[in-house]
Amino acid sequence: MRNIALRLAYDGTRYHGWQVQKNAITVAETLEKALSKICGHPVRAVGCGRTDAGVHALRYCASFRTGCRIPADRIPPALNALLPRDIAAVYAVEAGESFNAIRACEKKEYIYRLHNSRIRDPFLTGRACFFPSLLDLDRMKAAAGHFVGTHDFKAVRSAGTETKTTVRTVFWCDIGAEGDMITLRVCADGFLYNMVRAIMGTVVYAGLGKLEPSAIPGLLEDGDRRLTGPTMPPQGLFMSRIWYPGAVGEMMRK
Amino acid sequence: MRNIALRLAYDGTRYHGWQVQKNAITVAETLEKALSKICGHPVRAVGCGRTDAGVHALRYCASFRTGCRIPADRIPPALNALLPRDIAAVYAVEAGESFNAIRACEKKEYIYRLHNSRIRDPFLTGRACFFPSLLDLDRMKAAAGHFVGTHDFKAVRSAGTETKTTVRTVFWCDIGAEGDMITLRVCADGFLYNMVRAIMGTVVYAGLGKLEPSAIPGLLEDGDRRLTGPTMPPQGLFMSRIWYPGAVGEMMRK
Repeated sequence: MRNIALRLAYDGTRYHGWQVQKNAITVAETLEKALSKICGHPVRAVGCGRTDAGVHALRYCASFRTGCRIPADRIPPALNALLPRDIAAVYAVEAGESFNAIRACEKKEYIYRLHNSRIRDPFLTGRACFFPSLLDLDRMKAAAGHFVGTHDFKAVRSAGTETKTTVRTVFWCDIGAEGDMITLRVCADGFLYNMVRAIMGTVVYAGLGKLEPSAIPGLLEDGDRRLTGPTMPPQGLFMSRIWYPGAVGEMMRK
Repeated sequence: MRNIALRLAYDGTRYHGWQVQKNAITVAETLEKALSKICGHPVRAVGCGRTDAGVHALRYCASFRTGCRIPADRIPPALNALLPRDIAAVYAVEAGESFNAIRACEKKEYIYRLHNSRIRDPFLTGRACFFPSLLDLDRMKAAAGHFVGTHDFKAVRSAGTETKTTVRTVFWCDIGAEGDMITLRVCADGFLYNMVRAIMGTVVYAGLGKLEPSAIPGLLEDGDRRLTGPTMPPQGLFMSRIWYPGAVGEMMRK
């Protein structure tokens, strides 16, 4: 069996996340339907991670097994002819037999976009979190920096998913601003459930003066979810980069 | 009666254009419903121009008359609480008694966005025209330049609207590119029906090599719509700037 890795991009607004669910349209299900038509047999897609309802992906990696003979580079155009316009197949490559889009992933980056303006922008609806309150950008930058490093992140995750450990390594976590758009960029070897949205909530609390940036190391150590900032809404969140070894990594970097 | 001018922005995807129609949701109708609630009486809004179904506005000007006493600067937040999220009220100002958003308009600018890429971007769906064919940017720039000046533009308009004259003055018409986004920017004292979309179709034909840029002055002179390029789809078109004298002009420039 061939094992094909796909690079996708999607606007998650209409979807109940990546993972196949009963009674809700998901990205995986939509992709699998299109892949099954192309391959001529039922296809199961493995995604690089679960994204929640309303969360987007600038880059996403999914893999699937098939016996069909269609060349890898013909798969994206064939898929795009079948997929709805809020999902795009960007590239495809032959992956090793044992490749799995979750297990092979070395690190991931997410961005969270906050539209910090008095007035809503109709072109940002569903693609940024509208946040009209005054924010102190320097305090937000200082707050974000405290998440870098190897820590137990249970203070910034939501319950509901079993994991062996809540320790993760964050390689970078920074705040940038362009006009009235404030963007958090965070890269880690793995993310707990709702971790980026809770980090952003904590960074926003620092920006509002509700929390001292210097208190964050202590809050992480305490591990009490009730003391950090809120889980921000999904529409500001984008999976932005994913790192893999070999040919799949090359495809995701292009 | 007070006469209030509003600055709006809207994503036209869900609407059948600006103007109130039977059996179709329009921007004007949606705005009038919200204004009527705020003012406590039925409101009629006058727009600065008709936009077609699917066409967007980065800036749009509408005016309405009311006897209500709500201060102008309180109208946008009140409206935004009632409007759907694809329409935003940005500013409001008291306009002179005789102000009319169509008649007072000195000039307007539209942009047309062409996503010239092999691969669809799900975040541009409905907000740019996807155009994967190879285009010669220099030929497009040369073509656009030929529309500048005072000409009879009947070769680049669709039938269906009565006008006294088809002569207009185009102040600028140029092509810019950033990454894989090609943008036409055209400013005139007035536009004929579908004029920007037909200009863009003609510029695209030049970029494809189907038409010589230097042939455009002759095509305008001939005035035969069948010899110029096609009317491009609406989703790439945005009303971008509008010029007025006085306080309304100031509000639109902010």
